[in-house]
Amino acid sequence: MHEPMQARTEAGRRYVALMEAHAADFAQRAAQHDREGSFPLENFEALQRSKAMAAMVPEEFGGLGVERVFDMVTGISRLGRGDGSTAIAANMHISGGLIVRMDREAAQRRGDTATVEALEELLREIGSGSITFSLLGTESGTDQLHPQVTATRTKGGYLINGRKIFGTGSPAANRFFTFLGVQSPDEEQQIAGVILPRGLEGMEIQDNWDALGMRASGSNDVVFRDCFVSDAQFAGALRLIWGEWSPPWFHLIIPANLGLAAVFFGIAEAARDHVVAQVMTRTKKPSGRTLAQRPTIQHWIAEIEIERITAQSMLEACAERVDAFYAANPPGTDVPFDDLHQLNKLFQVTKNVVTNRAVTVVDKAMTASGGSGYLSRSPLSRWYRDVRAGPIMQTYSPNEQYEYIARATLGLPMNEMTS
Amino acid sequence: MHEPMQARTEAGRRYVALMEAHAADFAQRAAQHDREGSFPLENFEALQRSKAMAAMVPEEFGGLGVERVFDMVTGISRLGRGDGSTAIAANMHISGGLIVRMDREAAQRRGDTATVEALEELLREIGSGSITFSLLGTESGTDQLHPQVTATRTKGGYLINGRKIFGTGSPAANRFFTFLGVQSPDEEQQIAGVILPRGLEGMEIQDNWDALGMRASGSNDVVFRDCFVSDAQFAGALRLIWGEWSPPWFHLIIPANLGLAAVFFGIAEAARDHVVAQVMTRTKKPSGRTLAQRPTIQHWIAEIEIERITAQSMLEACAERVDAFYAANPPGTDVPFDDLHQLNKLFQVTKNVVTNRAVTVVDKAMTASGGSGYLSRSPLSRWYRDVRAGPIMQTYSPNEQYEYIARATLGLPMNEMTS
Amino acid sequence: MHEPMQARTEAGRRYVALMEAHAADFAQRAAQHDREGSFPLENFEALQRSKAMAAMVPEEFGGLGVERVFDMVTGISRLGRGDGSTAIAANMHISGGLIVRMDREAAQRRGDTATVEALEELLREIGSGSITFSLLGTESGTDQLHPQVTATRTKGGYLINGRKIFGTGSPAANRFFTFLGVQSPDEEQQIAGVILPRGLEGMEIQDNWDALGMRASGSNDVVFRDCFVSDAQFAGALRLIWGEWSPPWFHLIIPANLGLAAVFFGIAEAARDHVVAQVMTRTKKPSGRTLAQRPTIQHWIAEIEIERITAQSMLEACAERVDAFYAANPPGTDVPFDDLHQLNKLFQVTKNVVTNRAVTVVDKAMTASGGSGYLSRSPLSRWYRDVRAGPIMQTYSPNEQYEYIARATLGLPMNEMTS
Amino acid sequence: MHEPMQARTEAGRRYVALMEAHAADFAQRAAQHDREGSFPLENFEALQRSKAMAAMVPEEFGGLGVERVFDMVTGISRLGRGDGSTAIAANMHISGGLIVRMDREAAQRRGDTATVEALEELLREIGSGSITFSLLGTESGTDQLHPQVTATRTKGGYLINGRKIFGTGSPAANRFFTFLGVQSPDEEQQIAGVILPRGLEGMEIQDNWDALGMRASGSNDVVFRDCFVSDAQFAGALRLIWGEWSPPWFHLIIPANLGLAAVFFGIAEAARDHVVAQVMTRTKKPSGRTLAQRPTIQHWIAEIEIERITAQSMLEACAERVDAFYAANPPGTDVPFDDLHQLNKLFQVTKNVVTNRAVTVVDKAMTASGGSGYLSRSPLSRWYRDVRAGPIMQTYSPNEQYEYIARATLGLPMNEMTS
Repeated sequence: MHEPMQARTEAGRRYVALMEAHAADFAQRAAQHDREGSFPLENFEALQRSKAMAAMVPEEFGGLGVERVFDMVTGISRLGRGDGSTAIAANMHISGGLIVRMDREAAQRRGDTATVEALEELLREIGSGSITFSLLGTESGTDQLHPQVTATRTKGGYLINGRKIFGTGSPAANRFFTFLGVQSPDEEQQIAGVILPRGLEGMEIQDNWDALGMRASGSNDVVFRDCFVSDAQFAGALRLIWGEWSPPWFHLIIPANLGLAAVFFGIAEAARDHVVAQVMTRTKKPSGRTLAQRPTIQHWIAEIEIERITAQSMLEACAERVDAFYAANPPGTDVPFDDLHQLNKLFQVTKNVVTNRAVTVVDKAMTASGGSGYLSRSPLSRWYRDVRAGPIMQTYSPNEQYEYIARATLGLPMNEMTS
Repeated sequence: MHEPMQARTEAGRRYVALMEAHAADFAQRAAQHDREGSFPLENFEALQRSKAMAAMVPEEFGGLGVERVFDMVTGISRLGRGDGSTAIAANMHISGGLIVRMDREAAQRRGDTATVEALEELLREIGSGSITFSLLGTESGTDQLHPQVTATRTKGGYLINGRKIFGTGSPAANRFFTFLGVQSPDEEQQIAGVILPRGLEGMEIQDNWDALGMRASGSNDVVFRDCFVSDAQFAGALRLIWGEWSPPWFHLIIPANLGLAAVFFGIAEAARDHVVAQVMTRTKKPSGRTLAQRPTIQHWIAEIEIERITAQSMLEACAERVDAFYAANPPGTDVPFDDLHQLNKLFQVTKNVVTNRAVTVVDKAMTASGGSGYLSRSPLSRWYRDVRAGPIMQTYSPNEQYEYIARATLGLPMNEMTS
Repeated sequence: MHEPMQARTEAGRRYVALMEAHAADFAQRAAQHDREGSFPLENFEALQRSKAMAAMVPEEFGGLGVERVFDMVTGISRLGRGDGSTAIAANMHISGGLIVRMDREAAQRRGDTATVEALEELLREIGSGSITFSLLGTESGTDQLHPQVTATRTKGGYLINGRKIFGTGSPAANRFFTFLGVQSPDEEQQIAGVILPRGLEGMEIQDNWDALGMRASGSNDVVFRDCFVSDAQFAGALRLIWGEWSPPWFHLIIPANLGLAAVFFGIAEAARDHVVAQVMTRTKKPSGRTLAQRPTIQHWIAEIEIERITAQSMLEACAERVDAFYAANPPGTDVPFDDLHQLNKLFQVTKNVVTNRAVTVVDKAMTASGGSGYLSRSPLSRWYRDVRAGPIMQTYSPNEQYEYIARATLGLPMNEMTS
Repeated sequence: MHEPMQARTEAGRRYVALMEAHAADFAQRAAQHDREGSFPLENFEALQRSKAMAAMVPEEFGGLGVERVFDMVTGISRLGRGDGSTAIAANMHISGGLIVRMDREAAQRRGDTATVEALEELLREIGSGSITFSLLGTESGTDQLHPQVTATRTKGGYLINGRKIFGTGSPAANRFFTFLGVQSPDEEQQIAGVILPRGLEGMEIQDNWDALGMRASGSNDVVFRDCFVSDAQFAGALRLIWGEWSPPWFHLIIPANLGLAAVFFGIAEAARDHVVAQVMTRTKKPSGRTLAQRPTIQHWIAEIEIERITAQSMLEACAERVDAFYAANPPGTDVPFDDLHQLNKLFQVTKNVVTNRAVTVVDKAMTASGGSGYLSRSPLSRWYRDVRAGPIMQTYSPNEQYEYIARATLGLPMNEMTS
């Protein structure tokens, strides 16, 4: 029989159970936060208290010790059922824990003790719940490989200028991971990936998130105006080639963004459950039969199930493949670059299918609901708006995704995209 | 070359030009009314002042003398470009004028002078702008042929009880056309279509419209609690067979609802124009080329044009067919009932295609816009919500539409629908 | 009510009635020609005898005097109901008559008496049925603006070399209209459109057409090997700019190819009629009810009607627009080039929608038929193969169509297509 | 990276390698058998020689000892790449081996020694390659639960009368498994599932298979005319309730039909590989670039990959779930009936997605191929016909599938289907 996604490990199951409990709680406030566009700070406090935010941190550093990407995204999908906004923001932090753990393993493998220690300190902070991450990964009018927010060399550090958008979770965050175009007379043009603390002078977290959906996600702009960052703060920055894909991108993108796709699957599950329950109980005159007994409603329900199960199968298959990939290629070992592009291609296909099938599930649920799902008091009207964020979220939106998938299939140069 | 819909008569062109001017004006306030869920009373005052609301009323009664359904829906589609909420509410009144004019012609043909006079008075009122119609055609939990809002026989009249929903335009209306199930010891069970004035005791126009989109349409519930209607007020009521389709239904449904479909086509046109302008001017780094030069964007634009032109062709073809039908079968002449079902089938196909293609145009425009269309400050985020009302509006929603079309095609009994 | 396409003029109605009679006749042999891949020469003889092949030739030259593109494509669609292969071949000839008549009108307008006389002679030949046209418009591995079949200057004429493909109707034709890349020391590189008689030395009409569908269309390769064409024969050649669109292209493409789209619509109509009749009569145990009474079958029938009526509305709208265009811009008058691109864009949208909706109608008819439509003895199995030719036929196939439509919409240079 | 399906066990991998070798061999003759509609007897001899036909038979009985459904369908999908007709016929036999093995295990569990011995003898025959199964599961004009082919009680046995259709593989088979409606004064009306030997008097295997695709599958009608079957031959018959689903149905349907879905996935893989290779090598003038470098072609390739990977993920997920189900519920143990319906629902969803995505992959491959795929010499033209059999094959075709899925989801009675 068909079951929802189930964690594959004991630690995973404990984490998923936590997420289900959080989802039930958050669902009660989701409509209000959506209406007001307010940020559910209390949800993040609860997630920190329960350690769900430290799911991917080893137990020795205070986390839940979940190891598999499969289990991570399963938990995220559960949270998505309750409140999509909270889930996309939480995902950036939870997957951040996974990435830090993988970086530490890589540093261990190459014997870089200083980095190991720094990352263990970071894991301890995540484990204790003292820090919350937000990712500032997007800018308007450029792509990821050519950030226009710049870090210009100055005495003792860098001056940062520019605007990042879609800073999901920014109201709760005290650490911001972002990418900067380094401008320095001593260095080649490159991209630096740095963690910046909240509260730097010249860094303004705006309160301007106002969108169709995901209204409680706090996805504000963050503006930098001659914001000074010292050499010490810049020391651990990730250095990436300007204008080209390189392996670290994929180690960041795939785990973090697979979790995002899971959120939209969770929304689809909620919409499906909602409409199935509705048609099984509502009746209509003159026959007085339940809506479930009407052939056209049955047709939509079947289509919803086809779409939902397709999304689930894709999400499960991709998560398994990612786990298998890292089992075969542990952090810090050499992996052929083309393999990373192929893994990312599989992820892009998965993101495409899962987020679009999720949109379709909610749309068909609205159809099956008749006019009632269109009313603001129905959660369908919120899910309809929230779920539409899925396809356009990074990376890639449909505007680039098809070309990426094609290039990876046809053996064309990956850095020469025209989209 | 491809042109927008163009009125086919002089009177039509004057009316369409008026509607374009109104649309440009209303567009400026649409975002605010949408955000606040407020009703744009000032729009209806302007529409009355300009006589656009009396478009279908002969000039001798103070109207614009537009004669063709084609021209009527062309004008409605223009209004839809500017503000969908206003357009769906205005359509109920404007098409009402057409129906009254047709009813008068029918009464003339059968020599029913009293009815002619009453309808001419009504035309004069519409022509002068002193009355505004709203249609109360929908109830929750039943279909149109079995209204549960009842008119129970009492001394000197009827007591009305029950709840109508989706009373679009109710805040501006002083006349409500609605359908009641007549309960009387002297009469067979039947449906009465009556016009009720605003302000009857026991009739409450609630202020409870709050939905995903069409938020400025004032589609409130109207509740009747022992609301007394005198025999005099009931005198002109349209009498319809309980539980069965009969010709008057189609004379009401087709003109009124074709205008609704036109609103959603207008929204699609606006979204198309918006995104075409956007991709022709916005540039993206590193290439600095306009978005229009990117192949994937071109692909979406082509798909948008295919969908938009399909919707327009269908809307035009159906409007022409309706005009041709009434030219061949003037009001008051006998028309084979099956022909009305076939005309309604064509309309249902048109409604299906036009409203669904409109949804798709807006959806693809949002895709092509990247993340920007998802922000509340983009009109795309409003159109995305507004346009979704199209497929679920009466008659029929997709939950009944397919069966209706099939039965009309396969020669199955039309009154035995199972949906 | 919904009616099939109907000719708009008297001459058109006579021609459409002829085509219906031919279709009924040809339908009886269609399965056999399809199975054997044989060419229905007898159909072309019948079409010449009835004057249907001279539909667009003025009566004074022996034709039927049909004037409207609308009527022409209506007749072609009727033929498509009976035998798609015959219809696509006949269309090339029938639309050829229209083009010759338009060319004559243009020559008259500019006072070019010699050309007028030559074209009148040609009209007389078409009118008498003594000639049959085939178009050799396609080559493998290049596009239309860069033909690789060359006409190389030689003493007293040109030597033609190369291979044309998809020479539909070639077994019946004694005149071939084709495009050649002119190679001459005295002339700029250009394209010549010439009419070649059957039987030239060095011109081989191969008997190699063998395809998924349209198997009786005789769409053979035609190979030229040092085929000499004298200056006299070349005298009337149409001269076109190498590598660029120019007005004559559109005067050729649009009328001829709109007829092609009509063929596929006719196939869809036949498939729709077939399956509607089938489900209304076939019963299934245990209930013994007709298939038409089953809700899922009703759902497919409704979808078929939605698709079919959409295709018809598009075809009608485009044909009307083409007629209106030539009424406003008679042959030989100047027309802004951009207007031609816009008209062609509308045609490309129409071709896209009509041929794809036709494919979908046949596909859904096969679904509704259960397994029976998959058997060779069902005409559905032939229509399923035939109808798939629609989207890939010139101009444009989907591989170029989207870019063309987008460029025409976005104001991008039309000669810089990358597809 | 994305890999094709891979067997999960050693025995499975050996079997899959065999199937790949067979596929490469059969592919060379597939076009000819398709053209001639001839049955590839030599393929079945080769499959018997290699023991691929005995894949699911334990090694002790002469088979390959493959145990997992996952591995079985993986091998079948490989065969589908080479020759779909052979693959659907071989699947009925290979999955038959699995079913017999499961029946034996059930008999062992309930201590039914006689049946165990009979089934072991059957396994030995399959293992030795001496028998080949065909399934006669379909009739025209009724559904599976109400077979109209009857076994009427007579002295010493039964007389069989009626017609079975779609007897895939019948030319090679010497054992036919079929379902009969038992008519007997002593017994309740019921269905008997019996194995009949080839060559019974009154049983005619017609040579009448002639269809759109799968032309080499020998899916002939089998006609029974007073065909006598003795009580001894009837002794082992499976007894099933008339008009109702019961557990044995699902133990037959799911393994056998999941293999069928795999065939269509294999066809999709072949079409994808073909078109990817084609666009990477073919060039087009005037640019001379490969087709792969054209943006629209890239778009189709991306869409093909999205569809193909979706199909694969679904097929893998369902096969895993079936294996897990039988691991948790070994043959002969009690399993809640509703669980079987849920498993069958998952399979129906999978069949729907896999076969429809396969159709789409081939369709898009044909589009990307331009006109070349439409020619009979391209394998795409065969795959286009073959792959269309997928959605309409039992059980269920789309005409029943949606209602089945809906009923299983909504908790409606499964025996009251109206489709």
